[in-house]
Amino acid sequence: MSAPQYAVGLDLGGTAIKYGICSAKGEILHESQCPTQADQPAEVILNDLLTAAREAIDIAQKNGTAISAIGMGTPGSVNVESGTLMGNTPNFKLWKNVKIKPWLESRLNLPVWIDNDANMMAFGEARYGAGDGASNVACITLGTGIGGGIVIDNKLFRGSNYAGSELGHMSIRYDGIRCRCGGIGCWEMYASATAMIENYNRLKPNEKIESTITIFERYNAGEAEATQVIDEEIQIVSIGVANMLNIFNPQVIIIGGGVSEAGDWFVAAIAEKALPLAMASATANVRIVRARLGNKAGLLGAAAFALSRL
Amino acid sequence: MSAPQYAVGLDLGGTAIKYGICSAKGEILHESQCPTQADQPAEVILNDLLTAAREAIDIAQKNGTAISAIGMGTPGSVNVESGTLMGNTPNFKLWKNVKIKPWLESRLNLPVWIDNDANMMAFGEARYGAGDGASNVACITLGTGIGGGIVIDNKLFRGSNYAGSELGHMSIRYDGIRCRCGGIGCWEMYASATAMIENYNRLKPNEKIESTITIFERYNAGEAEATQVIDEEIQIVSIGVANMLNIFNPQVIIIGGGVSEAGDWFVAAIAEKALPLAMASATANVRIVRARLGNKAGLLGAAAFALSRL
Repeated sequence: MSAPQYAVGLDLGGTAIKYGICSAKGEILHESQCPTQADQPAEVILNDLLTAAREAIDIAQKNGTAISAIGMGTPGSVNVESGTLMGNTPNFKLWKNVKIKPWLESRLNLPVWIDNDANMMAFGEARYGAGDGASNVACITLGTGIGGGIVIDNKLFRGSNYAGSELGHMSIRYDGIRCRCGGIGCWEMYASATAMIENYNRLKPNEKIESTITIFERYNAGEAEATQVIDEEIQIVSIGVANMLNIFNPQVIIIGGGVSEAGDWFVAAIAEKALPLAMASATANVRIVRARLGNKAGLLGAAAFALSRL
Repeated sequence: MSAPQYAVGLDLGGTAIKYGICSAKGEILHESQCPTQADQPAEVILNDLLTAAREAIDIAQKNGTAISAIGMGTPGSVNVESGTLMGNTPNFKLWKNVKIKPWLESRLNLPVWIDNDANMMAFGEARYGAGDGASNVACITLGTGIGGGIVIDNKLFRGSNYAGSELGHMSIRYDGIRCRCGGIGCWEMYASATAMIENYNRLKPNEKIESTITIFERYNAGEAEATQVIDEEIQIVSIGVANMLNIFNPQVIIIGGGVSEAGDWFVAAIAEKALPLAMASATANVRIVRARLGNKAGLLGAAAFALSRL
């Protein structure tokens, strides 16, 4: 019997559910998306996920492709074995303590595997994207917050209670800003897209920009305030990346998320600053690279993870 | 055939080589030590290690105990598979790039396994000490620097190049003090015994104390300067411990090293501050405890590791 070759990947985001038919080689045979009803009851979101999965399974069937499993990433902490969202997640109103896996499995008659979205993205990038299949990969996403995903020996590292690899909540300033998580000086308070926008708006209080794209545009035009914000961003991301090198000593560090879309030069600038900050032995053969799969990393990783668990 | 039951553990420290006959259950049947000739050529140190191992093997033989392997911890980064010290280590003059494993194996006719001393201590404490055999344990030693050792799924985590888990070189202040490692704001620059002594001597410049024991004595006597230093120590250690919770989500965090000998109250104070700083899901079932094996953790861990590799 040959190994299962196709899975449906689902990626539940704050604004859209992305889904697709994915092969074990990392190809996407079909993809689509629908809006996330983030303020609706969990049952509504579950039904939307079910509809998306059924649609993908139908399309696969019509093309003679057998789907072996469903993988899905969701914001929040997930008990992977039971497939339960533990607690809640900031951008969703009623999406908390949801038993996602059994609910979907009983309706789809297929194995369903759920994990945190940052983990799924990291797994996708490690396997099919910028990780090029390396076995030890550390991934961060610079977005609204900073997400982290760690692959050790080809497996996602989650800690003893599925709560590990929260790299955005690593303090990089022991006497710093209080984070909404309860921590002090969390990395994401200084280097997320949210932090960049706040820093910029503080420098130019008469204007309220809403996207890091604006900051990068003005940086490219040579504006002083944008230059200050981007220079500080590069410095502070590099501190956290050096920490990742000293702690995980991975083969590859992947930087993704909206902020990384500024371009390869941005990731190269971070790497240039981070490498001399870390121990020499931890930097010997590492690659620090930009994520390659964009917003497809999550569904590809979810599909790959589901196939890996069969 | 029953599992191998006895190994010799060697712990190469800056001042002494500690060694002992250890059982797979974590008992020490015999132990001894000799001075480390840290400024002598590597061959001299290797010969001292060989003499120590032979003495232990002889004693075991006389007692009818069969030694199956030798385990050894050394300061510095170690390529565990080849048993080679990679680069040098600060407190030794000529102890660098030493092929320890083949040198000892060819003379002892027994399997020899070498690793970094902080890893061996962590393994010993995880298995026989404060970890009580838990499978996911993070260990720090507060001494001259801050050492880290991470056990994931009952195995030491070392990263892709044996350079991971350098927790003392995690930056906790992105704009902080330059560390001799090249990093900025490394944890050990603020919370090692060295840092505590420097902080104290800065507050009382007319006196030069040399040990954290003095600071703790004066803290217990209510001295203002000692209170300031200890309070800050507890605060800054707790920030790093919260990072360990968010990053590794272990079942147990063990705090060892000279500073921890202040007592259980000191570790309890750190735990009390660290828990609210970490994500709730990462603190659900964790124990934060003081190391239990003292200066025997290293040789017990080395023996346990060697037995685990047979």
